[in-house]
Amino acid sequence: MRDVAVIGTGMTKWGELWDKSLRTIFTETALLALNDAGVDKIDSMYIGSMSSGLFVGQEHIASLLSDYLGLTPIPATRVETACASGGVAFRLGFLEVATGISDIVLAGGVEKMTDVSGYEATYALGTAADQEYEGYHGLTFPGLYALIARAHMEKYGTTREQLAMVASKNHKNGAKNPLAQFPFAVSVEDVLNSVMVADPLRILDCSPITDGAAAVILCSVEMARKLGKQVVKVIGTGQATDNIALSSRKDITWLEATYQAGKAAYEMAGKKPEDIDVLEVHDCFTIAEICVMEALGIVEKGMGGKAVEEGLTAMEGKIPVNPSGGLKSKGHPVGATGVAQIIEITKQLRGEAGERQVKDASVGMTQNMGGSGGSTVCHIFEKE
Amino acid sequence: MRDVAVIGTGMTKWGELWDKSLRTIFTETALLALNDAGVDKIDSMYIGSMSSGLFVGQEHIASLLSDYLGLTPIPATRVETACASGGVAFRLGFLEVATGISDIVLAGGVEKMTDVSGYEATYALGTAADQEYEGYHGLTFPGLYALIARAHMEKYGTTREQLAMVASKNHKNGAKNPLAQFPFAVSVEDVLNSVMVADPLRILDCSPITDGAAAVILCSVEMARKLGKQVVKVIGTGQATDNIALSSRKDITWLEATYQAGKAAYEMAGKKPEDIDVLEVHDCFTIAEICVMEALGIVEKGMGGKAVEEGLTAMEGKIPVNPSGGLKSKGHPVGATGVAQIIEITKQLRGEAGERQVKDASVGMTQNMGGSGGSTVCHIFEKE
Repeated sequence: MRDVAVIGTGMTKWGELWDKSLRTIFTETALLALNDAGVDKIDSMYIGSMSSGLFVGQEHIASLLSDYLGLTPIPATRVETACASGGVAFRLGFLEVATGISDIVLAGGVEKMTDVSGYEATYALGTAADQEYEGYHGLTFPGLYALIARAHMEKYGTTREQLAMVASKNHKNGAKNPLAQFPFAVSVEDVLNSVMVADPLRILDCSPITDGAAAVILCSVEMARKLGKQVVKVIGTGQATDNIALSSRKDITWLEATYQAGKAAYEMAGKKPEDIDVLEVHDCFTIAEICVMEALGIVEKGMGGKAVEEGLTAMEGKIPVNPSGGLKSKGHPVGATGVAQIIEITKQLRGEAGERQVKDASVGMTQNMGGSGGSTVCHIFEKE
Repeated sequence: MRDVAVIGTGMTKWGELWDKSLRTIFTETALLALNDAGVDKIDSMYIGSMSSGLFVGQEHIASLLSDYLGLTPIPATRVETACASGGVAFRLGFLEVATGISDIVLAGGVEKMTDVSGYEATYALGTAADQEYEGYHGLTFPGLYALIARAHMEKYGTTREQLAMVASKNHKNGAKNPLAQFPFAVSVEDVLNSVMVADPLRILDCSPITDGAAAVILCSVEMARKLGKQVVKVIGTGQATDNIALSSRKDITWLEATYQAGKAAYEMAGKKPEDIDVLEVHDCFTIAEICVMEALGIVEKGMGGKAVEEGLTAMEGKIPVNPSGGLKSKGHPVGATGVAQIIEITKQLRGEAGERQVKDASVGMTQNMGGSGGSTVCHIFEKE
């Protein structure tokens, strides 16, 4: 396998983009990535999208977007693993370059979620859970993560305040990200006083409904050097699945797919949790970030809440987590999220993260998760 | 890259499977494939499904199916390129084994389409067209292919009878396939007298709405030999896109993505159209098979109708096309179709096709298409 580098990134402002269709949002982003990479031709494209069918009534977006980018006849493939779709699109782009089947690949993600009624958006997102054993009985994602939160509080003494601290930390970071949907600070009190969604989770514990896209360009490290690009090397990839329904898991506070995907990525990269300088994780709900820290081995089992309280994951902490603002502040257009995480790590390793730059970051990691943890994909990156 | 072989196939009877859910249909099929391959462990899984979200309200089926097969924590990924989803799932499985990232991979496809109302099934299928420029104006797939048929008749003199001959030939083959949804013969007169759907296409010109799944097991040729398996080698793969909307194409009778995907597969395999002994193509409508024959170079432009009339593609002809019965007779559970084509070719090259065996077949090819030709994936196989 060849060494692979990320040489271009593209992302536009996320939010409620009512003046733009899915095809417009994605093509703008893809063109930015091509421009950043300094290339105008690619060999292949992978696009993560969770449910363009349910959200905007359009499947077959691989053909649509290749067409609207003027890139036909290149192969283009849409990938779906719920909210981990973007990360998996990147993994497939990586594989294609690593094998030598393609030299330059675009990996992107897109979701347009705000043009459906509230009922439909929650329904569409709910199709990432086990419909027969969860959805049909009325469970949606805030409810599923509320069950996880309650179990974590019960088992490990995690506090309501610690959950709020995750949101507050991520919004503090996101306030420095001009592309974030909600680029402003929220205090722990704001979170504690916000409206209840699914006890114990309040609205400021939840990531928002977002329109947005993200795209990166991948090529071999050799080609990146020839093109005179700063090399951000992909040194590890891992993907895994777990029981889709919470009721089938031995311990609902433990994210086994995240543990397995992290393990595979660490092993491939030859790195350990303590080698990671900056980390982007899937904080779809505040409790998720706490559980992910534990499953990735950043902290011990049950210690995720305490770690946030002690500032371990703050910008000035030992391992800054979600400098981009995370899903919480940056927004969560589900299919695009995994790619945006990779963009943030690329910018951090390139030293281009501006006001939210993590000092001396040379190794970064991403963790992107589908459903209530039924699938996860992790990547590790190193600057040359 | 390593040489890759297909060592197991699994398929159950297709039709209106009202007593089985999507997860049951797929897991039964996957277990048959594992059993046929003689393995009980795989490293990774790719699943083609066009619109499990719109058809059965369930996305994230990669996690669901890995879970229900008892295969977690293996990586599992759903792939969607409309009706070419199954073929692309196979292509990704091929890439994963070829690179050495995985040793044994399952590539499958599934669609459960008959448990929604007629309106919804046609709507769901319609999301593979350009919704903004085709769907919103009332065009669905019978209409799109009717436009292609009318243009082909006008430009090349293709006759209404020649279209009917495609259906009649494929049903004659499908009558010998016990797993087909409609395993019975239909005459040219039956087609000509069947109910009109979209002029000139009648209901017996159209592939049906089907519940079904298909799965194959891939591994390296080296491992296949060690396992004592008959080696059916994957010698070529090609994937391509075209304008999604018919209105953007220069010539709607020409399937450019099929031409490009076929060309890539031929080049990789070192084969020419005349080297192919048996061919499975995407006859979602009778006119499609005619256009595909031309785009793959089996016959010259405009000669597809005449070739069928002269028996070139019949079982006893120079190049038997759709010995399985094709989508027309076998059924068309959209995400599974591309994988079922590969199963038929594998059986033909293994000499296991029974009453529909093509004599002395050593090289076979598949062509699987999304939408009105906006994406296509081709594979070429050779027996060792």
